Amino acid sequence: MTYQPPVRDHAFILADILNIDQYGDLPGFAQAPMDVVSQIMEESGRFTAEVLAPLNAVGDKEGCHWLPDHTVTTPKGFKAAYAQMVAGGWPALGAAPAYGGQGLPHVINLSFTEMTSSANMAFGMYPGLTHGAYSAILAGGSQDQKDLYLPKLASGQWGGTMNLTEPHCGTDLGLLRTKAVPQADGSYKISGTKIWISGGEHDLAENIVHLVLARIEGAPEGVRGISLFIVPKFLPDADGNPGERNSVYCDGLEEKMGIHGNATCVMRHEEARGWLVGVGNQGLRIMFVMMNEARIGVGLQGIAQAEIAYQAAAAFAKDRLQGRSLTGPKNAEGPADPIIVHPDVRRMLMDSRAIIEAGRAFLFWTALHGDLSHTHPDEAVRQKAGDYMALMTPVVKGYLTDRGLKVCSDALQIHGGSGFTEHFPASQYMRDVRISLIYEGTNGVQALDLVGRKLAADGGRAIMSFFAEIDEFVADHEDGPVLRPFVEGLAGAKAQLQEGTLWLMQHGLANPDNAGSASNDYMHLFGLTALAYMWARIALAAQGKIAAGDTDPFYANKLIIGRYFLQRILPDAASHLAKLKTGSDLMMALPADAF
Amino acid sequence: MTYQPPVRDHAFILADILNIDQYGDLPGFAQAPMDVVSQIMEESGRFTAEVLAPLNAVGDKEGCHWLPDHTVTTPKGFKAAYAQMVAGGWPALGAAPAYGGQGLPHVINLSFTEMTSSANMAFGMYPGLTHGAYSAILAGGSQDQKDLYLPKLASGQWGGTMNLTEPHCGTDLGLLRTKAVPQADGSYKISGTKIWISGGEHDLAENIVHLVLARIEGAPEGVRGISLFIVPKFLPDADGNPGERNSVYCDGLEEKMGIHGNATCVMRHEEARGWLVGVGNQGLRIMFVMMNEARIGVGLQGIAQAEIAYQAAAAFAKDRLQGRSLTGPKNAEGPADPIIVHPDVRRMLMDSRAIIEAGRAFLFWTALHGDLSHTHPDEAVRQKAGDYMALMTPVVKGYLTDRGLKVCSDALQIHGGSGFTEHFPASQYMRDVRISLIYEGTNGVQALDLVGRKLAADGGRAIMSFFAEIDEFVADHEDGPVLRPFVEGLAGAKAQLQEGTLWLMQHGLANPDNAGSASNDYMHLFGLTALAYMWARIALAAQGKIAAGDTDPFYANKLIIGRYFLQRILPDAASHLAKLKTGSDLMMALPADAF
Repeated sequence: MTYQPPVRDHAFILADILNIDQYGDLPGFAQAPMDVVSQIMEESGRFTAEVLAPLNAVGDKEGCHWLPDHTVTTPKGFKAAYAQMVAGGWPALGAAPAYGGQGLPHVINLSFTEMTSSANMAFGMYPGLTHGAYSAILAGGSQDQKDLYLPKLASGQWGGTMNLTEPHCGTDLGLLRTKAVPQADGSYKISGTKIWISGGEHDLAENIVHLVLARIEGAPEGVRGISLFIVPKFLPDADGNPGERNSVYCDGLEEKMGIHGNATCVMRHEEARGWLVGVGNQGLRIMFVMMNEARIGVGLQGIAQAEIAYQAAAAFAKDRLQGRSLTGPKNAEGPADPIIVHPDVRRMLMDSRAIIEAGRAFLFWTALHGDLSHTHPDEAVRQKAGDYMALMTPVVKGYLTDRGLKVCSDALQIHGGSGFTEHFPASQYMRDVRISLIYEGTNGVQALDLVGRKLAADGGRAIMSFFAEIDEFVADHEDGPVLRPFVEGLAGAKAQLQEGTLWLMQHGLANPDNAGSASNDYMHLFGLTALAYMWARIALAAQGKIAAGDTDPFYANKLIIGRYFLQRILPDAASHLAKLKTGSDLMMALPADAF
Repeated sequence: MTYQPPVRDHAFILADILNIDQYGDLPGFAQAPMDVVSQIMEESGRFTAEVLAPLNAVGDKEGCHWLPDHTVTTPKGFKAAYAQMVAGGWPALGAAPAYGGQGLPHVINLSFTEMTSSANMAFGMYPGLTHGAYSAILAGGSQDQKDLYLPKLASGQWGGTMNLTEPHCGTDLGLLRTKAVPQADGSYKISGTKIWISGGEHDLAENIVHLVLARIEGAPEGVRGISLFIVPKFLPDADGNPGERNSVYCDGLEEKMGIHGNATCVMRHEEARGWLVGVGNQGLRIMFVMMNEARIGVGLQGIAQAEIAYQAAAAFAKDRLQGRSLTGPKNAEGPADPIIVHPDVRRMLMDSRAIIEAGRAFLFWTALHGDLSHTHPDEAVRQKAGDYMALMTPVVKGYLTDRGLKVCSDALQIHGGSGFTEHFPASQYMRDVRISLIYEGTNGVQALDLVGRKLAADGGRAIMSFFAEIDEFVADHEDGPVLRPFVEGLAGAKAQLQEGTLWLMQHGLANPDNAGSASNDYMHLFGLTALAYMWARIALAAQGKIAAGDTDPFYANKLIIGRYFLQRILPDAASHLAKLKTGSDLMMALPADAF
């Protein structure tokens, strides 16, 4: 499968939808005007397509191998590719200049991250989690810890992991048992078993820095007694180089449905030496810095796998000759027409485009708010951006991965019987993307976070801002004939989302199960509204280009795909609203033993 | 995973929804009053749960193995289980007494077939395809062919296959190239390569009877020049025992996403000896006998995998302790509540039940019409039953497998991270069921068959009958308070289906792409309406039992799950109608090279 990096679409979103050049005097953005960004994206595309994509099927077939000495070997070619990535400075794009990074805004770094994930999701998780560990130490570590670890993590010279889950607890971290015993020198001895640790052991980097949740002896039970520790595989020596082997060991790998190229490890901490990050019993707060970043990254995986699966399906549909168009042969000299002539094949391709292109815009738009929440000089802007980041994160993660799976399944379907065989890549994309609905908080957890926490935070300030922003857009643009269907569709979706929000306010407090029972449909209704907003903004930009005389069909196609979204995908909004308003009574009516 | 055969639900459908005892004077039904059927179902449950289910994970992990001598070994335990199945007479349940079968109606045999598929889908395909070969020879073979082959196929002593697909043609059989050269003795020499042949080679049976589509030398091009041949692996000798090895060879196995326990073979026919079935150039007609039966069987696989996946998810949800109920602890003495207390977990379980239970009823109801179309003495009943069978088959196949995949994906989701590992069975169910959306005609082909052929046949007689039957049901039952929501939901769905049908009549002929673009949504709208009808009939039966004083919660639960269907699933009908009415313009607007 040849990967075609969507550089054109990334540039359109950054330049024409988000207009990032307007932030040229903010840190990070200052180093990255659009012409520089375009060069970076071209290079990203080349690296991911040429170096990482060819290893994707290899990683799936070969998987990782655990050896009795507790080492893990990654699939053939991964090590060389990782070295090439580090040498090229790619992991450092989004890291702080103080620690050797390029300091690019997150929204710009996403372009590289998406391409990495499309080209090779399993591979991309190694630098992805390393960046998460970097972020946690940046957010909560001491200056000494930052100086010691961040340059190595930023460059990718060392890898990083998140050690959260234990056999009896995943979502419910309050149950975790891994314990930390304080030592005289200020370090801790960490003991316990962690499972499902992505990149917990591998042969790509000279050291691996585990960020481990554990309970300091005597700490309170539940989530208020959890602390975060740095547990390096090799203890840094006086020069900061890998020294003595720490007693944290990989005891085995999980067999999984997909992402075979990523080592999913059982990790045994046997009085391993660790150092507290930040204050004791405050571990979850810092871990959530990492987690929220990771959730955007997982939403991105949904879009990234959808993109590569769509590309494979489109190529197959143009190549495979089978049957004739219902309206007469389109390839009369050939034995049959390519299957892209069939409306039902088009339906799946168009559905995919309608989700991918607006989903990507939604994701980049959300990440931009993450950047602005840190760097914008205006406090009001920072506050609104922070509100949006918090509100949108569960939607980005939950909605985009749900839809990403659907796109990958449709891509497999377009392949027919070939899609079910492992000679074609569609099966791998569907198997790989399936984890994105689960990890970093299942999509059910995202939906509950949205309705139970994010909506109500600060008296509903975030959702009110979002509604106001949509109202303003609608008011500004309802008169143009090209934009009218987009504005009408958006206004309709927003009205439904508002009605759903009101229903939740009225019924969720009285009976929290009502909020729970509505959460999934509400998240989807929210996602549809967000995508309707994105399509309206895409249409506005595309129409502007066309009005200015630009004849690139890229823009006319955007208007077509956007109107298709309004006709063929947005009708689901009404269905989600109807469902969410039915409450929890019937859902919860059966006794547990009737299941 | 312990499989709990849904004997209770099967008995309820056969006895209380379909009331099969009313057909007691028809052939087949006469041998199977409900008390006998109940015994058969108990035995089926025991055999499938105890013998086949334990081999399901084994088959997935081990797969089939091809050897250079062109033999294939099935996973450990399959051979003994197959022998036990044959010895128990299970494959013969639905075969004609004239050929050693029990002569049970298809609708009753389905109970065993569903259980087989739930317990071990890959295994179940071996007898499933054998029965298909049996049916094709029964429908089109000469008396000599029937006498020679049917007893061996009916018992399962010999296996059977369908050899249709070639590398360059699957859906479009008109392109096929395998050729048949007439010989002086009346046989043919068959040459060509067939792919994706399920059970094409294995070690379970002493002989394998391939039913092969090929083109007799000089036959017309396209679908009018295709003939059907019997190509046995071993040529029957004078006593009808396996004799000389025929030159049909398995050249390799496909690596697939799922159903690893079934051998998916590349078959090379190298001047293999074959015998024409029926008349030359009429092969597709007979093959479609086999195909239509197979399509019902594939719809059944969708329900069967949904059932076993649901069972695994329900067991996990009652066992896994994580978090607390939103309305206060339900397992206060434990460290956490079982996750079944969470509404979003319930949502997925209830969605699954609402689809499985009515989907199963729809499937059995359709199969009953298949039986009545053959055996009912009243020609009007036979005609209506045949109409229904033809109309419902693509809906059974397409809608129930689409929904089956969703149930399996939700079941995996309920497992959280465990679901993505291969230590739990959820991944296998999802990987296995994925093929059901593809083979025996992709779901897109089913949808097109529905809107392009089945709706219009005989001036729309079948759909008119269906609408009239629903109207009558609504008129008969709209006054009862318990049934009112069911009747209202059904009437609403039927009105939407009627509107969609009218739209197709008005717009599909003018532009066939409109029919194609509407087909998938129409099929889903049809499926929802059919399930609404089934839920209304289930509710009627359950209400009757309750009114008669039966306090078994089974009946009260049916009413709850049925009302849940109306509130939480049926709202999609409006969305499908809205989408299908948008036509094909935007769907077909982009030039192919824009994909």
